[in-house]
Amino acid sequence: MKKNAFYAQSGGVTSVINATAGALILECKKYKSKIGKVYAGKNGILGALREDLIDTSVENLSAIKNLRNTPGGAFGSCRFKLKSLSENKKEYERLVKVFKAHNIGYFFYNGGNDSADTAYKVSQISNQMGYPINCIAIPKTVDNDLAVTDSCPGFGSAAKYIATSIQEASLDVASMSETSTKVFILEVMGRHAGWMAASSSLARIDNDDPPHLILFPEIIFDEKKFLESVKKIVKQRGFCVIVASEGVKDKKMKFLAQSNTKDAFGHSQLGGVAPFLSNLISEKLKLKNHWAVSDYLQRSARHISSKTDLNHAEAVGKKAVQYAVRGMNGIMPVIKRGEGKKYSWKIEPAHLSIIANVEKKLPRSYISKNGFNVTNKAIEYLKPLIVGEAFPNFKNGIPIIKKLKLKLVDKKLSKWDGY
Amino acid sequence: MKKNAFYAQSGGVTSVINATAGALILECKKYKSKIGKVYAGKNGILGALREDLIDTSVENLSAIKNLRNTPGGAFGSCRFKLKSLSENKKEYERLVKVFKAHNIGYFFYNGGNDSADTAYKVSQISNQMGYPINCIAIPKTVDNDLAVTDSCPGFGSAAKYIATSIQEASLDVASMSETSTKVFILEVMGRHAGWMAASSSLARIDNDDPPHLILFPEIIFDEKKFLESVKKIVKQRGFCVIVASEGVKDKKMKFLAQSNTKDAFGHSQLGGVAPFLSNLISEKLKLKNHWAVSDYLQRSARHISSKTDLNHAEAVGKKAVQYAVRGMNGIMPVIKRGEGKKYSWKIEPAHLSIIANVEKKLPRSYISKNGFNVTNKAIEYLKPLIVGEAFPNFKNGIPIIKKLKLKLVDKKLSKWDGY
Repeated sequence: MKKNAFYAQSGGVTSVINATAGALILECKKYKSKIGKVYAGKNGILGALREDLIDTSVENLSAIKNLRNTPGGAFGSCRFKLKSLSENKKEYERLVKVFKAHNIGYFFYNGGNDSADTAYKVSQISNQMGYPINCIAIPKTVDNDLAVTDSCPGFGSAAKYIATSIQEASLDVASMSETSTKVFILEVMGRHAGWMAASSSLARIDNDDPPHLILFPEIIFDEKKFLESVKKIVKQRGFCVIVASEGVKDKKMKFLAQSNTKDAFGHSQLGGVAPFLSNLISEKLKLKNHWAVSDYLQRSARHISSKTDLNHAEAVGKKAVQYAVRGMNGIMPVIKRGEGKKYSWKIEPAHLSIIANVEKKLPRSYISKNGFNVTNKAIEYLKPLIVGEAFPNFKNGIPIIKKLKLKLVDKKLSKWDGY
Repeated sequence: MKKNAFYAQSGGVTSVINATAGALILECKKYKSKIGKVYAGKNGILGALREDLIDTSVENLSAIKNLRNTPGGAFGSCRFKLKSLSENKKEYERLVKVFKAHNIGYFFYNGGNDSADTAYKVSQISNQMGYPINCIAIPKTVDNDLAVTDSCPGFGSAAKYIATSIQEASLDVASMSETSTKVFILEVMGRHAGWMAASSSLARIDNDDPPHLILFPEIIFDEKKFLESVKKIVKQRGFCVIVASEGVKDKKMKFLAQSNTKDAFGHSQLGGVAPFLSNLISEKLKLKNHWAVSDYLQRSARHISSKTDLNHAEAVGKKAVQYAVRGMNGIMPVIKRGEGKKYSWKIEPAHLSIIANVEKKLPRSYISKNGFNVTNKAIEYLKPLIVGEAFPNFKNGIPIIKKLKLKLVDKKLSKWDGY
């Protein structure tokens, strides 16, 4: 029997999550006997609970195809984790009600750890609530911290942005260091896992190229050792480039970004590892320094996305549909790296039970002994993920964005009394 | 008589200053009867004073050609302003000594306001010290604040980076705003002139697209009006994107970035307009917000340089050589915009006396009445400067950089006792 599909984006978005969405919508069109319309949740799973369903069938094909070139979450995302079935049955009952009302039999949830958990719970309503569903979680996260999959769509592009940016900024600092800035600090994302920080190492052509110091959330910050290293590097090379993960912690396991600075009114100041380190270097080493915080720029920089990453993102979107029409449930299409020196990959199904809520940190073997660099093993792993360019088309100097109509389906149910 | 040329980079570098250098070196080769070798100053004018002259003739042609794709200052830059001839004659005597020792008759100085001033002073040693020199200043600055020239090489590329980045980040914020970040702030360069902040307006496809608020150094910061605007925009659109120039000042003419925050030790904290505004919005409006500071990334982002800007950068390098061999002195090749709706430009010579030390701020007519936006006039001016892409070639996922040999010429003089 023909069923409609529901697709939702979840959690922090990436520069290629819409590429997954576009590939998925186009793939669904190939299964006309099984899949009817593709509804997208307005603001993620909240769209299902609120019955805010975007009808993707009224969008122009060119706009759907251009999702490949559009960063952010085209349908809206949200940070929202369903409780377990036993803890909050009402939410699941509402979901089933909306799914029933709109004849939805396929649920695609595009997100990270939390979303894999939510998708896993939703996959269980087949059995526990008797509602037939094919629930497929699709991987996405710049943090690269999902288990089982070799890498996460979104990460390779952020990694390419970071490697390219630190290469460029290092050339800038190098040329100014004689009379001006001696130290440059780039803060990158990664609250618990150092994958993004590690990717800055890919900026190097020769081994001793910048960045000179990388600070990982996996390594406790040792102020003395850090300052000694900065001082030594500036003495030897004339300048020092540092990449710091936002999640760097001190020995009390407190984020450096939450340093207890106060503003003029005694309110505690919003942090940032980069300004914290900048202050430290100014105070203790009296070295002129500059710092940058890329924040959302690094995860939305579609203009410098990795072709490899983009291909991954589209492949998991396609495979999700294929798994669903084959009747799979509680599954994630994951990236499996081939054996051998030359990078190869394929997509495989993996059970959500072994993915949900597991956080994959940077292994200690990927971090150098002194804690300030990556190992060759890390570089071997990371290198292929940023290979290839996939520049969007530009008009008037900026990337072409095709706005969607985002037309909502007529509601059939009473208003949800939840959020 | 055949003379050697001396080329130096000065002040903050850009993503295309090396394109100027490359074009200049290649152009010099066309005048073999007049120009011998091209020496580049190691770390700018300091290279002349210290007799640290880089022999560009030993570099591979492919490396010189690839300067077009290399951000930063390939020969090193410096922040160093010569005093006037009457105030510090010793420096000029040293310059003349080095020029004489190495048969240098052409001096090309690639920089901003200060450099135009220095070049102007050096151009006077022809008359005042009897040393024949053809001194040409070449425009460069991301700040776009040089007088006479229609725009400054380096600016268009930084503008394209900012417009593209704010377009991408805005799509990210828009998709997260329902349950997460409501306000995003990007801090951009521009201590005294708001050209870079203004360029963020080019991110818009429709008039009401982000950025929603732009803060210029030319407009005194009005906290109340600012907070009211943020609140209103978030209410109307669900989120608010702000671009703030690093040079925004309060009514006491104090930089917001120098807010008097203290760290735990009572030391004053290094600023940043973005974290300052973030704090303000958190405290006063209780709105979740994120902020980014691009710092050097915006001026070194060669991967997203404007083709128009790159063409300008190469053209001024070439023209500088042509002016010099024609015997001109105390001149800058400037960009002259053509009349008519379609953007056109040519290079013209302008006297340094009307350029040196003049700072071109954003005209009030380029800023909207409420002070938070640009006018159509500004957009008309800015738009053509970011048009066209000129992606570098990539290898292993990062831009190809060809390292120079940077071989120093044998010294003929005693060590300089200056710096």
